[in-house]
Amino acid sequence: MNQSDLLKILESVKAGVLAPGEAIERLKHLPFEDLGFAKIDHHRALRQGFAEVIFGKGKTPQQVAAIVRAMLRQKDSRHNILVTRASAKLFAPVKKLNRAAKFHALSGLITIERSAEITGKGTILVASAGTSDIPVAEEAVVTAEVMGNKVEHFYDVGVAGIHRLLAHSEALMRARVVIVCAGMEGALPSVVGGLLRVPVVAVPTSVGYGASFDGLAALLGMLNSCASNVSVVNIDNGFGAAYVASMINRL
Amino acid sequence: MNQSDLLKILESVKAGVLAPGEAIERLKHLPFEDLGFAKIDHHRALRQGFAEVIFGKGKTPQQVAAIVRAMLRQKDSRHNILVTRASAKLFAPVKKLNRAAKFHALSGLITIERSAEITGKGTILVASAGTSDIPVAEEAVVTAEVMGNKVEHFYDVGVAGIHRLLAHSEALMRARVVIVCAGMEGALPSVVGGLLRVPVVAVPTSVGYGASFDGLAALLGMLNSCASNVSVVNIDNGFGAAYVASMINRL
Amino acid sequence: MNQSDLLKILESVKAGVLAPGEAIERLKHLPFEDLGFAKIDHHRALRQGFAEVIFGKGKTPQQVAAIVRAMLRQKDSRHNILVTRASAKLFAPVKKLNRAAKFHALSGLITIERSAEITGKGTILVASAGTSDIPVAEEAVVTAEVMGNKVEHFYDVGVAGIHRLLAHSEALMRARVVIVCAGMEGALPSVVGGLLRVPVVAVPTSVGYGASFDGLAALLGMLNSCASNVSVVNIDNGFGAAYVASMINRL
Amino acid sequence: MNQSDLLKILESVKAGVLAPGEAIERLKHLPFEDLGFAKIDHHRALRQGFAEVIFGKGKTPQQVAAIVRAMLRQKDSRHNILVTRASAKLFAPVKKLNRAAKFHALSGLITIERSAEITGKGTILVASAGTSDIPVAEEAVVTAEVMGNKVEHFYDVGVAGIHRLLAHSEALMRARVVIVCAGMEGALPSVVGGLLRVPVVAVPTSVGYGASFDGLAALLGMLNSCASNVSVVNIDNGFGAAYVASMINRL
Amino acid sequence: MNQSDLLKILESVKAGVLAPGEAIERLKHLPFEDLGFAKIDHHRALRQGFAEVIFGKGKTPQQVAAIVRAMLRQKDSRHNILVTRASAKLFAPVKKLNRAAKFHALSGLITIERSAEITGKGTILVASAGTSDIPVAEEAVVTAEVMGNKVEHFYDVGVAGIHRLLAHSEALMRARVVIVCAGMEGALPSVVGGLLRVPVVAVPTSVGYGASFDGLAALLGMLNSCASNVSVVNIDNGFGAAYVASMINRL
Amino acid sequence: MNQSDLLKILESVKAGVLAPGEAIERLKHLPFEDLGFAKIDHHRALRQGFAEVIFGKGKTPQQVAAIVRAMLRQKDSRHNILVTRASAKLFAPVKKLNRAAKFHALSGLITIERSAEITGKGTILVASAGTSDIPVAEEAVVTAEVMGNKVEHFYDVGVAGIHRLLAHSEALMRARVVIVCAGMEGALPSVVGGLLRVPVVAVPTSVGYGASFDGLAALLGMLNSCASNVSVVNIDNGFGAAYVASMINRL
Amino acid sequence: MNQSDLLKILESVKAGVLAPGEAIERLKHLPFEDLGFAKIDHHRALRQGFAEVIFGKGKTPQQVAAIVRAMLRQKDSRHNILVTRASAKLFAPVKKLNRAAKFHALSGLITIERSAEITGKGTILVASAGTSDIPVAEEAVVTAEVMGNKVEHFYDVGVAGIHRLLAHSEALMRARVVIVCAGMEGALPSVVGGLLRVPVVAVPTSVGYGASFDGLAALLGMLNSCASNVSVVNIDNGFGAAYVASMINRL
Amino acid sequence: MNQSDLLKILESVKAGVLAPGEAIERLKHLPFEDLGFAKIDHHRALRQGFAEVIFGKGKTPQQVAAIVRAMLRQKDSRHNILVTRASAKLFAPVKKLNRAAKFHALSGLITIERSAEITGKGTILVASAGTSDIPVAEEAVVTAEVMGNKVEHFYDVGVAGIHRLLAHSEALMRARVVIVCAGMEGALPSVVGGLLRVPVVAVPTSVGYGASFDGLAALLGMLNSCASNVSVVNIDNGFGAAYVASMINRL
Repeated sequence: MNQSDLLKILESVKAGVLAPGEAIERLKHLPFEDLGFAKIDHHRALRQGFAEVIFGKGKTPQQVAAIVRAMLRQKDSRHNILVTRASAKLFAPVKKLNRAAKFHALSGLITIERSAEITGKGTILVASAGTSDIPVAEEAVVTAEVMGNKVEHFYDVGVAGIHRLLAHSEALMRARVVIVCAGMEGALPSVVGGLLRVPVVAVPTSVGYGASFDGLAALLGMLNSCASNVSVVNIDNGFGAAYVASMINRL
Repeated sequence: MNQSDLLKILESVKAGVLAPGEAIERLKHLPFEDLGFAKIDHHRALRQGFAEVIFGKGKTPQQVAAIVRAMLRQKDSRHNILVTRASAKLFAPVKKLNRAAKFHALSGLITIERSAEITGKGTILVASAGTSDIPVAEEAVVTAEVMGNKVEHFYDVGVAGIHRLLAHSEALMRARVVIVCAGMEGALPSVVGGLLRVPVVAVPTSVGYGASFDGLAALLGMLNSCASNVSVVNIDNGFGAAYVASMINRL
Repeated sequence: MNQSDLLKILESVKAGVLAPGEAIERLKHLPFEDLGFAKIDHHRALRQGFAEVIFGKGKTPQQVAAIVRAMLRQKDSRHNILVTRASAKLFAPVKKLNRAAKFHALSGLITIERSAEITGKGTILVASAGTSDIPVAEEAVVTAEVMGNKVEHFYDVGVAGIHRLLAHSEALMRARVVIVCAGMEGALPSVVGGLLRVPVVAVPTSVGYGASFDGLAALLGMLNSCASNVSVVNIDNGFGAAYVASMINRL
Repeated sequence: MNQSDLLKILESVKAGVLAPGEAIERLKHLPFEDLGFAKIDHHRALRQGFAEVIFGKGKTPQQVAAIVRAMLRQKDSRHNILVTRASAKLFAPVKKLNRAAKFHALSGLITIERSAEITGKGTILVASAGTSDIPVAEEAVVTAEVMGNKVEHFYDVGVAGIHRLLAHSEALMRARVVIVCAGMEGALPSVVGGLLRVPVVAVPTSVGYGASFDGLAALLGMLNSCASNVSVVNIDNGFGAAYVASMINRL
Repeated sequence: MNQSDLLKILESVKAGVLAPGEAIERLKHLPFEDLGFAKIDHHRALRQGFAEVIFGKGKTPQQVAAIVRAMLRQKDSRHNILVTRASAKLFAPVKKLNRAAKFHALSGLITIERSAEITGKGTILVASAGTSDIPVAEEAVVTAEVMGNKVEHFYDVGVAGIHRLLAHSEALMRARVVIVCAGMEGALPSVVGGLLRVPVVAVPTSVGYGASFDGLAALLGMLNSCASNVSVVNIDNGFGAAYVASMINRL
Repeated sequence: MNQSDLLKILESVKAGVLAPGEAIERLKHLPFEDLGFAKIDHHRALRQGFAEVIFGKGKTPQQVAAIVRAMLRQKDSRHNILVTRASAKLFAPVKKLNRAAKFHALSGLITIERSAEITGKGTILVASAGTSDIPVAEEAVVTAEVMGNKVEHFYDVGVAGIHRLLAHSEALMRARVVIVCAGMEGALPSVVGGLLRVPVVAVPTSVGYGASFDGLAALLGMLNSCASNVSVVNIDNGFGAAYVASMINRL
Repeated sequence: MNQSDLLKILESVKAGVLAPGEAIERLKHLPFEDLGFAKIDHHRALRQGFAEVIFGKGKTPQQVAAIVRAMLRQKDSRHNILVTRASAKLFAPVKKLNRAAKFHALSGLITIERSAEITGKGTILVASAGTSDIPVAEEAVVTAEVMGNKVEHFYDVGVAGIHRLLAHSEALMRARVVIVCAGMEGALPSVVGGLLRVPVVAVPTSVGYGASFDGLAALLGMLNSCASNVSVVNIDNGFGAAYVASMINRL
Repeated sequence: MNQSDLLKILESVKAGVLAPGEAIERLKHLPFEDLGFAKIDHHRALRQGFAEVIFGKGKTPQQVAAIVRAMLRQKDSRHNILVTRASAKLFAPVKKLNRAAKFHALSGLITIERSAEITGKGTILVASAGTSDIPVAEEAVVTAEVMGNKVEHFYDVGVAGIHRLLAHSEALMRARVVIVCAGMEGALPSVVGGLLRVPVVAVPTSVGYGASFDGLAALLGMLNSCASNVSVVNIDNGFGAAYVASMINRL
């Protein structure tokens, strides 16, 4: 159910086709579907413009499949379905539910694309500081695409070879929102942020060793960025960055 | 110098009024002005649509005044001037430079408003969880206003009395970007984020005591928000949140 | 041995059936049974109204079995037996000792139910923020039941979809004590606490990744809760929360 | 407004004295009073059985006075008023509002007692490990009293002289809830918890130096207590412990 | 070579049997034996009264065997040989070098006993708070024995059942030095320390979960002990505690 | 009351001069004296061979004076009195109670010497790595002296100029116990420990800046010392080190 | 391409053999080679005098092989090739590309030596505190050799047996730069630094357990070194230390 | 005493002017001068080529003056004298000792220049990311000068305006060693390091707020630098960076 579906209900009320009480009942019963171990927030599509996303980690394959099945049953919804932090094991039963289901091994995402409509107004650019940051960057790329955005990306443009970044200035200038993934010292968002006049969403990655403390160094670096147009999401949270970027890109 | 100024230079070149070499010279000498202890990035207005902001903490009154003076000298710029983390002591010499200079004691900002033009496309809403978070929220409000946005705010709507937040749902729905300031457990952005389909910029504050560890608890809470449309800035960084929100609101 | 057993001893003394010295001897020799590697505190049932609970982690199957055997030998005790942080490997030899022994794979508990008496005065409600928090919540549910309480639960009611929680308000109002399990930002106890006039025991879980730091973010969030009726136990300590709740529910 | 006031409204409706619509209006408009910088949750007395408590830290004397004035205006409320983390400076304007206002210098509390009714069912016992923990313990004592409880206390019974604690066993056994305040290694709650069959609320204090890290050592110690009937509140949060204990004691 | 060997050399010099230059040469060449990857400090037996101890972790079986072989070659030494943090894999080649070699699986120690002389003046007592702390406690017991001490121990006497500890007061009073191993909140050393007038060496263990942070909670607790006769060694360092206790017990 | 006083009581019982019941009564009433805000553990002198030490920090001058007065009243005790973490303000009322009271400004100790008897068997050596560590080292020196030990010290022998330490080898060899105070990297105890065959008590100090994190770097360094005869006390806890050393030196 | 190659280009320009525009074009197109997942910075050899080093961790064998292949294709470069944090699995495809490829199992390095020229002016000395630190030390040794330096090393010279270090004073004095690897308390760089007048690069290692916190203790110790000629690299970063040392040794 | 002084002694021996025994005596008595509270390492000038530096923090003015006086007494030394972390209060008595004494208020250094000889072979460049980092940068500049180096500096060239740094490329290329001071995210050393082929010494500063945690963010960032020619010193340790750079520049 998307916002225009809600409009239809309200217009049916206005047109006298639907009794107000009945409309309220439909709305009241929509909010969520209770599977016992999970309550699927079908209403989220209405509130946020995208269906609830399934966090795969810590769930059994059975639980994930049951949730996906319930979401597929929502016939009037054409929203794409997304499972994050998934594995081949979680994917197996989902694959059986829908032929369009796809497992993105690099980023650990499962997607079921039911709509290919582009709803974002501009391009989201995803940049990564190193080759080892690519899994997180890919999580952002796939998420942003599945949420209806045009996405560009370039990888391995870390600050120790600043000319590699500058070579892409055209693409940088073209973007409406930029997502920057970096581990180790996490300095890339500051440099990118300083060059641009659009919002930069920074994703610290757990790439590194020793005093990177699994991404803490990059996280702190980004939170202290001297470029003011930078905001930050959780370590390795490529999904969250793409979600925020999608919200921005739909404005 | 704003982007249309740059256009004029380039058009003058096109029109043959300005020799290319001369145009390059003008552009080349613009980047920054070197005061020795500081290099003012006049070019930033061009790149980012807002003049460089002065971080007051750790600077002497003389240094701040010298930078402001140099910025005021840029005659062709109509950008507002902003000093953050300032004090009455830093304000004294600035006041003498320009009658429009204003010290916002609550938020520690100095502003010199040279343009009242609204350039943001929608409303930025600033919410705070408690009364004690107001100084940080005010830093966001003043910054967003000085950067050309229409701003609404409501304070003291923390999650322990969720009805206080819900009472403002109309204003929430109206906003194009929301800034949420919260200390202690920092839970408000998750609740607000779950209700809305616009980007939420979360600002952890250092309000609290004991295991709040000067805002660390709120920061970690926000980074782990189960609402996916939330991104985070540094502790007490109301300025940064407003800057990010302005970037978004201009899109 | 429970408190009424103690009463019987004392009454026997009063009735002249038992010599005081003999009574003291019996009490003196009761305190604990020494297995060398463990000292079973049989006296705890008297002091705390529940037999000593066995912490399985770090013990060998042989050690666990020996302790359970000693507890089963206490003929006059009808207290249920509980092993926490157990595994199938620890369960194997226990199963052989008593047919009622049961292994709860999800929560890692072993229980031997010898009494089904309800001693708690009201209902304990267990709520979890997400599906991934269920193992911890189940540890609380099973523990509370085995300690003689009526238990209700609902799962997946996190704050990003606040309507899912509100839909359960009736059950919330009915509870005498509430246990709330949440990972990530750990915000649910604050919202639940703000709605109720009963004690809320908060359990941070290690669900999350990156800056959740294995439950630290949720722990700090809960310790800083702006709802004042919230107290906190260790990360993933569903058992402890149920123990505290049982103590409260027996008052 | 307390729960019996609500009953009166509903009974008036039942008796036909009050129109349902009007009753709803009264309830709808009750929730909170908006002072701009603060929204007073008058409804909390109804939900939680105690009026909203004012967190003094970070508020100006004017703000605190305005909130207290608004609470005093609630004629139909007989709840006591409590300001925490207050100072003599915050107290000055409050004193002028009500002659019963009292400043507790040791614990930094301001109280206005409007009802001396005892609503707690048993005794709350407050124990402190050392003399230096007394300010925190006093915060718990005064809060528990102002919330309608009978309170006992004994101080300086730390675990390095265990006989000092044992000398008070009678009082310990008498208590319905126990609050234990301890800094340094925070071991006292474990010992007390092991002796009793009632809930123990542990308050880590910032007493200590060096590796006490302002109460962190005590906090971690208490969270890892081997006594299972212990739950924990924030460092130095005597108020919160008393609030939780009051909730329990009213059951 | 022990201190009396050194005496013999010096006496030979005094008696004119050994030329001073030759004595110096012998002493000069003693300090250590260079195996390339390791420099065995044979001189340590002289300086510290016990041969160098081999830290097994991070060494290959070949390296450990080579070091042990070199130590066995020191014919004039009768010191026992000790390898800590060892595994069955490290033990295999050592076993072949000497029939007296013994692997203590619980504590991960390898010992080669060449002398059973008791050099410690009193008894070293080793106590553990829980059954799960036994591996660390055993590391202390075996080390203390191999270093020539009479050792007593009792396990599972944690503070939540204080009577279990008090039941052993006689043994406690008898000890010349006490080693206390405890995980979780690490409170036992404070209670033991408060009862005794001898030095207590506290060993935090990594037993626990969640906010025990692998022994950090216990470590901080012990460092902040309110009993002043407590000093602390590294987490899980039963060996170090026994080494310190041996030094004390030889005085 | 010291151990020989206890002997006298028991001998009086044996000699029939004192009735057993009366002896028990005397012992029973000895344990502590309750001042309300403090319970003085007079029994500690018996258990630990030294009177209870007063931790000055967080106590008022009135509280400290009352405790000292109560201790002075114990006529049959000849133990010296010690107040740690004191200030000139705390000293003022103590000075009036006893002419022998002395304030050690450098170390913040107050002492009242009532006995100059040397009870320690050997010399305690106190070494500091730098001049800035002297206040902590002095706390150890004064405490050790007041507890009846012969004390030597040398300061500023840090490891960056190892010859300064070696120049004192004679004094090092002479000591029965060594206390080493060091801030910054805290390396000195490892070097000293490696040279000696006696116990070394290491005191990390908060000397340093930046990544010394107020003594944390030194603390961690000392806990990980590769010299096995080193145990550690809290940061800046010169008193505790001396207390442990005294316990050892009396053996 | 090395610096003399650049000289040739510039000299060709000077000699008129190469048109300036063409030279610029050649330089412009050199910077990096884009493999999609990686951008190889061939220009780095020019800027830094050594080809880009491949960080193996987090890369697939295919990715590593593709990068190595591209680097081998750079015919005019005679720089050695280095892959760090590699495994046997990463090595397999590289081995097939070039017969000179060598896998250093101990240090996890892959090297392809194409030049054996010594470009460093003096000797780099690598010292390790313990045998367990050797893998990190070997990473430094191999890196320094592959970068054209003469390298000496000695292992197991930790501060608890200071004479083992002093026995190597001659080698110490001979070195132009010293690299010191140490885990546990990380004290060796301070002692070495205090003895020498050359720069010391300190490498904390993750050797240790418990409160070594995977090298944090050693890291903090080294950052707080009281020897002023010490600078520090990341935990276990033997490669980085050798890189810095090479830079220094080429001066 | 510098190295050439040592040479003179040795040459005198060679020439027969000085008996070997007498030479040894002179050398033996040089090592340090004992002031009780401090041991001045006069020998350091010999070992390290620069006199011992006085760490002012935590020392009294009397102590600092006494040490300076002793150093001035060393007639044959022409080394400059340096006191770090000093204040006007510490300077007062030093000023009276020597007219050349100078207090650098910005950096808190006291210098007594006795030699203006340039001993460094190239230029040391000091760069700071922001104006607020200048005090730390100045500490580096003054220290490097006083140690005999030619120094250049430029300030306020942070990565958010990368063109400000690039404008100084000539000076960058000219430097033999570069010191980079940066707070907040500490990204500047990575960018500078990536551009150059000389060693970069990075100094994290405590500039920033919130999640900068007093320089921790910058420190971690620098330790994880993706530029391999970067090594790091303690937070705010401009002195240490200059010391390391001087050691390098003398090679």
